[in-house]
Amino acid sequence: MTGILVSEVGPRDGLQSTQRVMPLEAKKAWIKAEAEAGVREIEVGSFVPPSLLPQMADTPELVAFARTIPNLNVVALVPNAKGAARAAEAGVHGMSIPFSMSETHSLKNLRKSHPEMIEEIRVVAEIARDADIHFAVGLSTAFGCTMEGMIGEDNVVRLAEQAANAGAQEFSLSDTTGYADPAQVKRLVRKVRAAVGADRMTTLHLHNTRGLGLANALAGLEEGITTLDASLGGIGGCPFAPGASGNIVTEDLVFMLNSMGYDTGIDLEKLLKVREIVAAALPEEPLYGFTPDAGLTLDYGTRGKS
Amino acid sequence: MTGILVSEVGPRDGLQSTQRVMPLEAKKAWIKAEAEAGVREIEVGSFVPPSLLPQMADTPELVAFARTIPNLNVVALVPNAKGAARAAEAGVHGMSIPFSMSETHSLKNLRKSHPEMIEEIRVVAEIARDADIHFAVGLSTAFGCTMEGMIGEDNVVRLAEQAANAGAQEFSLSDTTGYADPAQVKRLVRKVRAAVGADRMTTLHLHNTRGLGLANALAGLEEGITTLDASLGGIGGCPFAPGASGNIVTEDLVFMLNSMGYDTGIDLEKLLKVREIVAAALPEEPLYGFTPDAGLTLDYGTRGKS
Repeated sequence: MTGILVSEVGPRDGLQSTQRVMPLEAKKAWIKAEAEAGVREIEVGSFVPPSLLPQMADTPELVAFARTIPNLNVVALVPNAKGAARAAEAGVHGMSIPFSMSETHSLKNLRKSHPEMIEEIRVVAEIARDADIHFAVGLSTAFGCTMEGMIGEDNVVRLAEQAANAGAQEFSLSDTTGYADPAQVKRLVRKVRAAVGADRMTTLHLHNTRGLGLANALAGLEEGITTLDASLGGIGGCPFAPGASGNIVTEDLVFMLNSMGYDTGIDLEKLLKVREIVAAALPEEPLYGFTPDAGLTLDYGTRGKS
Repeated sequence: MTGILVSEVGPRDGLQSTQRVMPLEAKKAWIKAEAEAGVREIEVGSFVPPSLLPQMADTPELVAFARTIPNLNVVALVPNAKGAARAAEAGVHGMSIPFSMSETHSLKNLRKSHPEMIEEIRVVAEIARDADIHFAVGLSTAFGCTMEGMIGEDNVVRLAEQAANAGAQEFSLSDTTGYADPAQVKRLVRKVRAAVGADRMTTLHLHNTRGLGLANALAGLEEGITTLDASLGGIGGCPFAPGASGNIVTEDLVFMLNSMGYDTGIDLEKLLKVREIVAAALPEEPLYGFTPDAGLTLDYGTRGKS
């Protein structure tokens, strides 16, 4: 059985866009319960200034808590070198920086041009190296941008190469905007892997904005992707456009992977129960997912075993 | 560009489970508008006794109407030889009979054992041949049954062969229960095609019960499937389990196929407008779909064109 790492990003990508701040104790309970369900990597938060994202202000405490959980890879997002220094101090296992392939989005999101981002990546890579922390660059808006539209695939490849030269250890391709289609996923994964090495490009970060999230995940698996980001309950969607922009739903992804016979190490029945923690802490936040509504198939336990 | 036929089954599979009966004029408007959006095949209804399914009582009138639309393949479901005779009289281009791979489900749904179904298929095949009507057998519950659980793949192959010997011209594999996973879709499509001939097994009928519908469609495309059933707005879901059991959503499927560069012949912007007809006629029925909420991507018109 091929092992696939499902990386839970809900406490970061999901919670950064909720209106209410989830209390620290609820975040801890969520992370603990997911780890107990078999999830082996969780992005617990981001090291952005608390004044900008109060939802993420307790990330250092969460990192410290998550580090006490055995066999859990504790990762966080860092927007820049300053955040990287804070992440290193907090003791993360891994950190990732979003590098937007759309320069328009990069300027708007992190106020940096592409050359400025490459310089930032160089500094973050040094911080990570010094602290012996795994460092990944998330190639965000790689499949299209809501401001620029199409992003040239050759541009993505060129920027990934520049980031590799600046010290990025690993890459993920991020469909930040929910633009990706499966044919494009296959093409771009293949091109970036050819440029930076297949062993350094193993992760997809997908959103389910147009319902293609799991189809895109399948396309990635077929190209050798072995890590998939997902968010419990698909949280992170805009409350004014139901179902419109959250991450792919961890529960549905795990149902698909386990049914297909991939080894995720995740107990789906336990995972489904974790929703109760999130629902109780954020009662006004819609939780998505089809498998939670429909339940497991009668033959679930025997699928993919032959 | 590879052509893919998107076969709209909403007026049959969707409407048969709605609580309110959609008025004939609304059905006509829906069918007409979808054909104008470029949909080339519509399953307009089923020839079941009106006492059992009042929602389908106007199927003969709908067939007559749909036959006046140029370049539209007008198909209907028939449960048995009696229905087939009525369908032939009404003037369908094609008819299909559901042949449940779960004998428990077959006995419950059509009150026939597997041997009795094979005999029925033989009679229907004769009716179809005499009337020069295309005849397909839908291998339903092929990916699992809510009563029997797993359906042995060798059983599906054996029953498909028996149906072929009884005169079935063509086959579709139906995930009636939303049990399918992409690995299983690939295996079963391959096995049934090997048994009955690839040119006779070109269609998948998928439900989105556990959110895997489009991933399963992608798996089918990769095995050479060229016809995909879908339902506008994914209608047909149980109102007591939101999102839980409708067909795959035509709008999301067309978004995926067109973005990937497949030639569906469907104008998605026109198709999205058809939802208004269904929403107005069945205001209490939830309409599903992600693309309708999120809208098209900025680069939609240029995708898949290179």
